[in-house]
Amino acid sequence: MSNGRAVNGFLLDITGVLYNSIYKSDGIAIPKSAEAVNFLYQHSKVKFLSNAKGNSNRNVARRLQRLGINVREEDVITPAPVVAQYLRENDLRPHLFVRDDVLEYFHGIDTTSPNCVVMGEVEEGFSFDRINRAFRVLIDMPKPLLITMGNGKFFQRIDGPCIDVGAFAAALKFSTNCEVLNIGKPSHFYFEQGMNALGMKPEEIVMIGDDLMSDVGGAQACGMRGIQVRTGKWRPDFEKMGVTPDLTADCLFDAVKQIADNGFRL
Amino acid sequence: MSNGRAVNGFLLDITGVLYNSIYKSDGIAIPKSAEAVNFLYQHSKVKFLSNAKGNSNRNVARRLQRLGINVREEDVITPAPVVAQYLRENDLRPHLFVRDDVLEYFHGIDTTSPNCVVMGEVEEGFSFDRINRAFRVLIDMPKPLLITMGNGKFFQRIDGPCIDVGAFAAALKFSTNCEVLNIGKPSHFYFEQGMNALGMKPEEIVMIGDDLMSDVGGAQACGMRGIQVRTGKWRPDFEKMGVTPDLTADCLFDAVKQIADNGFRL
Repeated sequence: MSNGRAVNGFLLDITGVLYNSIYKSDGIAIPKSAEAVNFLYQHSKVKFLSNAKGNSNRNVARRLQRLGINVREEDVITPAPVVAQYLRENDLRPHLFVRDDVLEYFHGIDTTSPNCVVMGEVEEGFSFDRINRAFRVLIDMPKPLLITMGNGKFFQRIDGPCIDVGAFAAALKFSTNCEVLNIGKPSHFYFEQGMNALGMKPEEIVMIGDDLMSDVGGAQACGMRGIQVRTGKWRPDFEKMGVTPDLTADCLFDAVKQIADNGFRL
Repeated sequence: MSNGRAVNGFLLDITGVLYNSIYKSDGIAIPKSAEAVNFLYQHSKVKFLSNAKGNSNRNVARRLQRLGINVREEDVITPAPVVAQYLRENDLRPHLFVRDDVLEYFHGIDTTSPNCVVMGEVEEGFSFDRINRAFRVLIDMPKPLLITMGNGKFFQRIDGPCIDVGAFAAALKFSTNCEVLNIGKPSHFYFEQGMNALGMKPEEIVMIGDDLMSDVGGAQACGMRGIQVRTGKWRPDFEKMGVTPDLTADCLFDAVKQIADNGFRL
């Protein structure tokens, strides 16, 4: 085939597309994802749009490099620095319920008498006491605002699926009736960070991810094309959930190869 | 006044009505609640319908007795034994996400290859790992069923409000699309336990509680009268939330006194 529209740039999800996550370890590279990344750096434009909320961009890139996947730090987009920028631009004073590794992004932001909560913590730093502190901040606000780093139902570790931050946002909304602002996929605002980093219009870009709703559906809603890979959190029942990917491939390498073989058209 | 309908029996909420809760302590009796309970035992019929999920009925009664409030164990209704009975009657095999103190009620119930999750744990036993185990059980079920002990937005401790089990039910529902069955106030099924214990029709009974939705609104929806006390979790903004109590009183003693002074009519 040589039909389809031009693909000028790629946004790649990271976890479940480049590597699979293991609790408290670097994880395992997905076969041939390193080759796919090298190929895209040589033959197209690529940025990495992740909802990862537990590590700085520097540490995300370093981890991938340790796994043999040569991703440059400056090409990584994660929610924490985007949230920090949003807080600065909107004069928001957060109560921070985030991982220590991303605190650096919030240096200099006033956190006294908070007028919002920023949540990006699950796993080891999550506790009843910490979510309860966030709850108490929200319930005392006249117009409670919760900013979340992503809104996922679950994330995938090698040992199984894990309940994700979207669930705890639903919990806080149930108890405080807060507004929830997701700065992460599938929000349009967050996909714009990827478009801006590529310097392209959405119709030139394909997003490749393992999450049907956040990656594929989110990208399509912004006018990009969305590609589903059958790695990471992909499950067979994704194929009857009402979102139709522009392409479904067994892995990142296969997706890239099909598009490249088609003259970078899809 | 001497108008109104006869009040033949009382259902009393416990936490926030008889005493205020303090983390890892017995808490503090609410002034004159002991006298009100003694008066009702002498002059009417009374049962105690609580959503408390952390203690056995025996330990609930003992705690109240230590606070000087003479409540009999056999008059205490809490969700755990009601849930256990429901599981037995419906051949359900639970994954138990509950407090150690209520495990005794579940002795002999098959918990292998669970076909539901029972959740009644917040505070010290709550952890990411435990809610994640519940999540994994639910996400693997064709028709996931979550049974919760109450569905509250928050409970009140002396140190402040605390996010409650209803929030974590919302979290699990968000991530697994499970059915949520609340065995606790305000469910009709749970109020029926109180009616059956009193052996009365709903129109003979008043429910006295500090939770506008669970206690007052729930009772009214079952045909009882609902009385709001301004103790426990009561907040001034309750008065514009769309549920109109049949009576609002400063505390249990005042509520009981008003009804008794009116010849047990309301």
